[in-house]
Amino acid sequence: MAYPAGLVDLIDDLYQQGVNEAVICPGSRNAPIMLALVRHGGFRCYSIADERSAGFFGLGLALKSKKPVIICCTSGSAGLNFAPAVVEAFFQEVPLIVLTADRPAEWIGQWDGQTIYQNNLYGKHVKHFETFEAFKPHQLVQKALDFPQGPVHMNIPIAEPFYPAKGEKLPVRTSKVAAMPHKQDYSWDKSILDTISDQKLLITVGQRPYDEAENTLFKLLVEKGIPVIGDATANLPAACELNHDLVLANEGLWSTYQADFHLHFGKSFVSKRIKQMMRQHKPAQSYLVHENPIGKPDPFQSLTEVIHATSLSVLHELISKNLTANPSFKTWNPAIQEAFFKKQAWNELHIYNALIDHISKTDADVHVGNSLAIRYINWTEAKLHAREVFSNRGTSGIDGCLSTAVGASQLANKLTIALLGDVSFHYDRNALWNKYLGPNLRIIVMNNGGGGIFQVLDGAKDLVELGEFMVTEHTKTAEKSTLDAGLSYSKAENFDELNSVFRDFFKPSASGKVLEIFTDGSENTAALQAYMALFKH
Amino acid sequence: MAYPAGLVDLIDDLYQQGVNEAVICPGSRNAPIMLALVRHGGFRCYSIADERSAGFFGLGLALKSKKPVIICCTSGSAGLNFAPAVVEAFFQEVPLIVLTADRPAEWIGQWDGQTIYQNNLYGKHVKHFETFEAFKPHQLVQKALDFPQGPVHMNIPIAEPFYPAKGEKLPVRTSKVAAMPHKQDYSWDKSILDTISDQKLLITVGQRPYDEAENTLFKLLVEKGIPVIGDATANLPAACELNHDLVLANEGLWSTYQADFHLHFGKSFVSKRIKQMMRQHKPAQSYLVHENPIGKPDPFQSLTEVIHATSLSVLHELISKNLTANPSFKTWNPAIQEAFFKKQAWNELHIYNALIDHISKTDADVHVGNSLAIRYINWTEAKLHAREVFSNRGTSGIDGCLSTAVGASQLANKLTIALLGDVSFHYDRNALWNKYLGPNLRIIVMNNGGGGIFQVLDGAKDLVELGEFMVTEHTKTAEKSTLDAGLSYSKAENFDELNSVFRDFFKPSASGKVLEIFTDGSENTAALQAYMALFKH
Repeated sequence: MAYPAGLVDLIDDLYQQGVNEAVICPGSRNAPIMLALVRHGGFRCYSIADERSAGFFGLGLALKSKKPVIICCTSGSAGLNFAPAVVEAFFQEVPLIVLTADRPAEWIGQWDGQTIYQNNLYGKHVKHFETFEAFKPHQLVQKALDFPQGPVHMNIPIAEPFYPAKGEKLPVRTSKVAAMPHKQDYSWDKSILDTISDQKLLITVGQRPYDEAENTLFKLLVEKGIPVIGDATANLPAACELNHDLVLANEGLWSTYQADFHLHFGKSFVSKRIKQMMRQHKPAQSYLVHENPIGKPDPFQSLTEVIHATSLSVLHELISKNLTANPSFKTWNPAIQEAFFKKQAWNELHIYNALIDHISKTDADVHVGNSLAIRYINWTEAKLHAREVFSNRGTSGIDGCLSTAVGASQLANKLTIALLGDVSFHYDRNALWNKYLGPNLRIIVMNNGGGGIFQVLDGAKDLVELGEFMVTEHTKTAEKSTLDAGLSYSKAENFDELNSVFRDFFKPSASGKVLEIFTDGSENTAALQAYMALFKH
Repeated sequence: MAYPAGLVDLIDDLYQQGVNEAVICPGSRNAPIMLALVRHGGFRCYSIADERSAGFFGLGLALKSKKPVIICCTSGSAGLNFAPAVVEAFFQEVPLIVLTADRPAEWIGQWDGQTIYQNNLYGKHVKHFETFEAFKPHQLVQKALDFPQGPVHMNIPIAEPFYPAKGEKLPVRTSKVAAMPHKQDYSWDKSILDTISDQKLLITVGQRPYDEAENTLFKLLVEKGIPVIGDATANLPAACELNHDLVLANEGLWSTYQADFHLHFGKSFVSKRIKQMMRQHKPAQSYLVHENPIGKPDPFQSLTEVIHATSLSVLHELISKNLTANPSFKTWNPAIQEAFFKKQAWNELHIYNALIDHISKTDADVHVGNSLAIRYINWTEAKLHAREVFSNRGTSGIDGCLSTAVGASQLANKLTIALLGDVSFHYDRNALWNKYLGPNLRIIVMNNGGGGIFQVLDGAKDLVELGEFMVTEHTKTAEKSTLDAGLSYSKAENFDELNSVFRDFFKPSASGKVLEIFTDGSENTAALQAYMALFKH
């Protein structure tokens, strides 16, 4: 038998427990795992050469399918290139099953090729690590789905030969094993909410996947006069929109927002202001609703306790209570914003405003890049409600925004829009180095000639080193990378061109499309300063 | 004071200890480190946006300068993208000083942006980790230079504000501190060589930097009839050339090569055959010469003991002995090879043979990519002696071959030639996303339409999954990435075109150049099989 024992069973286990997607990076030592996956028949298999991109592609598949996804690579530095995606999955709490092929243990440290210390390669950034042993029960799916969900890692030592002999068939698995593991149950002390009726209640919602059932209840809370605050990444319904990131620009009003009782759902916020306001004006009681978070995250520095429960369970309980309306966040005056955007000018603020208008009329998932892109979505009032918004806010890196979108697009029966800056695009341009770029892909690159976020930061923008060592100014466009990938390319340098492109940009097409929008960094900064000034008083 | 205390002193320490190169990746939290580096005046600073490429760029600088080099990044996943270069540096034993900015410890795990567990981020793959404390003595340079040399990591928590106030000058360091740390001394038991005179002596040399003094002694050993075996990465003089990787194709002769006494210098071998032969025909005594290796590497599975000493010290002692000539490796018949290459055919073997001819007439450093490229250099008889050959054989990854070459080219007052496959090129094409592409850069891309190495592996080449999941066939060329980077592009699809390009490819030019050579995978495989068959009997 030339084929390693137990691999077929491992892979069939994963299948029987509900895993159906596998991203496989080419290699020799992991070829037996590749064969077990491809020949199983139950997996959609994707071959991607750059492991960094492949990891994020897998993350995108997991985000869209809401199920664990396999990413598999050969030995050596291949697994290190998975790390940015693995760590993002860890903090975004997305189940990934990382399978790394390795040399047998006795060859580690013996100066053989592609050999590093792969045990516990990702340190504290995985939920679980184990070493493969043939036919031994494993805990991969269970641990990936246990709350907090996240990545798990199995290192698989494989000795040569790697390939079945000519004509040799792989062993066939017949036994039925584990079903999809059960989710853990949590019970919580409902008496926490006993005193809520008379209190000034504030609900904040960090990043969370779009969830229709929860959104119905959030909407009911709003109808009861309770402020429900969330960034675009919170995927809240339109009824919750409070424009908190603009309203909070007026620090003079912060004390009026102070709550007695605060409940936080979901994970992290993009908005820095909501965190700063809450830290300065702490609610008397502050609870985080999470089945089982990593540690005791306390972004508002006011945590009373974690309520170990599903959001739905707490929301149902909340709705059943008599609640007192809290009008303190109703300070939004849409006329200010309308007046600003009426005077059309070619800068990122106005362009994002126009983009969101267009996107809100399109049935699409929206993947927003880190750095400036996700902030502009907050600043232009996110009208993206009912479009699911994704963003790699676990680590907030720019390293895999595009690959994540391309991965997620595989499972979307609608458009997948990736909206990101030029630095994020080039950083992750190997996202376009695979054959899975479908016609439903729409990429919008905001090119301001470098890392525009640094031009916005107080203090940074006056440094003489700004251009060379922070913005990293460049004159590169996305055009050649786009054409290399077989996608169509358009660009816009003014609103006439933009409107012309948008006549059919979101219409069905034979191949994916990239639109690059060119702006001037200093005009963007000036517009943003003028805009923010409007909300400061 | 808006600028973090102690950073200027840290950076000036590094300067006073002999560090002069710093690769800085743009970010906000690491801006204070950037300012300390840029404003110090003693550092050549490079700004590179993709941390993966930046890490390898720094590795290239360290390889070429043979001194520690700083790589510096912001918090979050940025540091993870350094990992492939850090781990390559660890196993290749190259000093790198990794400075990662971080949030203050109390903010870790609080759902703030760009926050991961950065302490001990690289696990066992750095020589030393420490956390920055203002004005506290550190061990960075000392630990990076202690044998085995390698990467060290300092995590630097930095609180806001990050920038000096307007008009504020950075503090100035006046005190003189530590000089460049001394290298450790080792003494060894010279009696090990007492019995060597009558024994059948074999010397193998793994990867090592080019060293004139050592090479003189290796040449003297050859003149005494001692076989000195090394791949191109051993950087041995031409006198040592034994064509071991071809000669050893004839397994019938392996027993005749068995040595009594074996000394190994340098690090790992590319050639699999030399390791297999030695494992099967173990010398009675086998010593590894290394000041202080990581563990007890035993690639030949025959290690008697490590001689903790410099190569020079052992070579001098050896030369002073009466040695018995060992003619067992003198089995090379150049006529066989000459006949093969006389009949010119368009496949990688013939092309590498021609390339090496051209390169050997050029004053240049040569960076050879992993996977097939470095193997072809062995198979075509490496005439690169006297050109320094670099290759990332620490982990043997394809992830940073080109970035390493671009980094090294900064410090080379001659041509820097990067010779690599199409998959390696595209994987690392962000190597070309910076403004440090000098006119001395020459990149040769061997495009066989995918990962050609898998077509060469026994067993793999017959798999139906070969094309899709191993070779990862593609039709992409390097042209657009090249033009995007402002380099000139040529291609060759036959020897007429190749010879035409080579008329001025290595001549001085205003900008760097890329040459892409297109071949057919199956013809490459057939030629290689025919070639190897010649040496099997």
